[in-house]
Amino acid sequence: MSKRIVVIGGGAAGIGAAGAAKQVDSAASVTVYTEFEDVAYSPCGIPYVHGKEIPSFEQLFLETKEAYVEAGIDIHYETRVQAVDLKRREITVEGEGTVEFDRLVIATGFTYADPGIPGTHLEGLYYVKNIRRAMEWDRVLDKVRSAVVLEASPLGLEMTTALGHRGIETHLVDPRPWALAEVADPDIMQPVQESWTEMGVQMHFNTRAEALLGTDHVSAVKTSDGDIPADIVVICTHKQAEAELAEGAGIRIGSTGGVIVDERMATSAEGVFAAGDCAELPHGVTRVPIQGLSGSHAYAQGKVAGANAAGGGRVYQPVYVPWGMVAGRWMIGGVSFGETLATALGIPFIVGAANGITRARYYPDVKKIRVKLLAEPKHHRLIGAQMVGGEGIKERADFLAVAVKTGITLADLAWMENVYSPPMGALSEPIAAAAQNALAQLKD
Amino acid sequence: MSKRIVVIGGGAAGIGAAGAAKQVDSAASVTVYTEFEDVAYSPCGIPYVHGKEIPSFEQLFLETKEAYVEAGIDIHYETRVQAVDLKRREITVEGEGTVEFDRLVIATGFTYADPGIPGTHLEGLYYVKNIRRAMEWDRVLDKVRSAVVLEASPLGLEMTTALGHRGIETHLVDPRPWALAEVADPDIMQPVQESWTEMGVQMHFNTRAEALLGTDHVSAVKTSDGDIPADIVVICTHKQAEAELAEGAGIRIGSTGGVIVDERMATSAEGVFAAGDCAELPHGVTRVPIQGLSGSHAYAQGKVAGANAAGGGRVYQPVYVPWGMVAGRWMIGGVSFGETLATALGIPFIVGAANGITRARYYPDVKKIRVKLLAEPKHHRLIGAQMVGGEGIKERADFLAVAVKTGITLADLAWMENVYSPPMGALSEPIAAAAQNALAQLKD
Repeated sequence: MSKRIVVIGGGAAGIGAAGAAKQVDSAASVTVYTEFEDVAYSPCGIPYVHGKEIPSFEQLFLETKEAYVEAGIDIHYETRVQAVDLKRREITVEGEGTVEFDRLVIATGFTYADPGIPGTHLEGLYYVKNIRRAMEWDRVLDKVRSAVVLEASPLGLEMTTALGHRGIETHLVDPRPWALAEVADPDIMQPVQESWTEMGVQMHFNTRAEALLGTDHVSAVKTSDGDIPADIVVICTHKQAEAELAEGAGIRIGSTGGVIVDERMATSAEGVFAAGDCAELPHGVTRVPIQGLSGSHAYAQGKVAGANAAGGGRVYQPVYVPWGMVAGRWMIGGVSFGETLATALGIPFIVGAANGITRARYYPDVKKIRVKLLAEPKHHRLIGAQMVGGEGIKERADFLAVAVKTGITLADLAWMENVYSPPMGALSEPIAAAAQNALAQLKD
Repeated sequence: MSKRIVVIGGGAAGIGAAGAAKQVDSAASVTVYTEFEDVAYSPCGIPYVHGKEIPSFEQLFLETKEAYVEAGIDIHYETRVQAVDLKRREITVEGEGTVEFDRLVIATGFTYADPGIPGTHLEGLYYVKNIRRAMEWDRVLDKVRSAVVLEASPLGLEMTTALGHRGIETHLVDPRPWALAEVADPDIMQPVQESWTEMGVQMHFNTRAEALLGTDHVSAVKTSDGDIPADIVVICTHKQAEAELAEGAGIRIGSTGGVIVDERMATSAEGVFAAGDCAELPHGVTRVPIQGLSGSHAYAQGKVAGANAAGGGRVYQPVYVPWGMVAGRWMIGGVSFGETLATALGIPFIVGAANGITRARYYPDVKKIRVKLLAEPKHHRLIGAQMVGGEGIKERADFLAVAVKTGITLADLAWMENVYSPPMGALSEPIAAAAQNALAQLKD
């Protein structure tokens, strides 16, 4: 009899797992259960449709439902998995009863952390996640005059930018002293915040949200710095691992609240794997578990989990977490640690920074770029980077993540060669200049 | 008495050397001799002014002449150095007589290889180099209806694109089977050549230029495939090292015709350094000497030569040569070897390629990108890369050059993390996909 592989969750991790399982063992039966109406769309694109940068939600869909049928993947839509029974090797599906499995992949994703303030029962609170709800919310946004974005998380930055771009009076409220303060350094965020000001966004940092006010529908946010009237509130709190099903089955949960997995993405339960936002993984530098990474991470983890569920022997390596996004009128990004996070974690470092340009200074559309590099003090191996600029941030972040992982030093970067061609690159590469800056400071 | 440092040449290498020498020893007297009217402009920008992408030549200037005076660098413009006497430690300067030096930096640059065909005495032949001549030629171009670009070298590609962009009937003539054939593979150049066709450029590959025809002024190019009428001919032959002065002084010249230097950029003569297009350097992979690299290389070499001339101890490392340019409507680039060059050199390799995209597929201005990776067959260490795409080529080429230099393997790249954010990066990184493709082929 063919192997029965069940996947719970239809996001990037779940769909990655299903596809990889079929690739490794085409005879396996692969069934995916999702609560939602769709799979295989890009939830990461939602803020950009709201911001009117992408004309319609239809463009976010990747595959038709038929494509999965043809690929031999059986997807059960709008279906809630209620329990996992490890002893009986079965799951309980609402309206379907019990379903047996040989191997299970848990890809149940995330939920937004409860803001923990009165008023979360009110209407008008937008939790960005599902595309059908986003389509409904987009029509609501047509009538919205003012919005509060609660917390300057990555999604908070994207939604602030999108709503500002759409011409809605947008207020960003965050208890920390600057945007994305847990990840990014203030010098990196300064140009972003300046561009938000230009766009008319109003920022409220060092400001706690204390309550959501209103009768049935939200009408304002009460903060430590006064009330902010709002037609809607976009809840952009921390993404927590959605690991209830796994926990209920007795699978081990880690310090972040995510499912603990080994390098094969296997959980503590035999034949059960987990991937994506519901799992936690060690950071490559600190080996401390982290969770809530990108869709690209979820997809890659899903592929490893699915391949191994089908009998493969793939390994997922510790993560160094290159990140990047557009915020305001800038791109920001980096890898692993900035100064703020490294300091908070007690990680010793030396640092160098440089401001540069992305093309010849006279070439049209040349953009500014700032690169900051952190290295361990002894051997000067790179441990982190932060950047803000107008282009080329993603590519540099990817590069620097490989550099951190492979132990590349400041000296390697300081004397790196670089492409010089007026329409695509400047005479000096800012990564090299930042590394030279760090090394020069050691001599002082 | 302060050290007398003389620099021959006012290009990127010479100016880099002069600045670095002053930085290391501010008491040194630093004198630069240049044949031209200017220093410190960007010759690499000339094709883009001709192509009307940059409005004026004035924008190519970096510094005023006063800036060098203030920096304590004495520049002698429009001055030809006629001879170097190593025994007497002096140079002979036309119109100035002999000038003594303690340390000498030779940065005499390149000359275009003689096309070696009849008619090179005619008027209407444009050798792109000096900015004042370029300004004069730009006025000529206003009246030019048809032009032949002789040889599909890097400059040939830029000038073909510029003239096509300007609306001039442009013919590219090259004896090899495709553009930039000594460097780039045909699959990389195919989209470039298609875009030239769209721009109205006429390509004549596998075609030898046999003579330049005309009475006083060129009127046509006689080729192995018939005559091509032309108002002007842009000579874009190979850049040869201009090493006559060094050779005349008895300094050792290498197999490429360039001045041989060690890792300190020191020549065979005590206290004499060389940098830039007049020098040759070992390639990092093959250790075979090469010359004629980019302005970025020249500048970096100049800084090492100048610093060491002033008493510093800097080292210039073997080059892996990331390269990139805009050609037609595409960016192309890479590092070290493509399939064609590796095959020609007898270097064994395995290869993988992938076509990808630069942003989310639904995001505005998303561009295609093709990445090809070459690795040595035993340990799968990267030895070269080639790319064509719409953005992000320079940054990836820089990354892959560091990867070649530091011994990064296909496995390192295949499972690299990548930034995923719709406006700046796709779910999958094409470098990773190309590495996976190479590894998958090994299993077949």
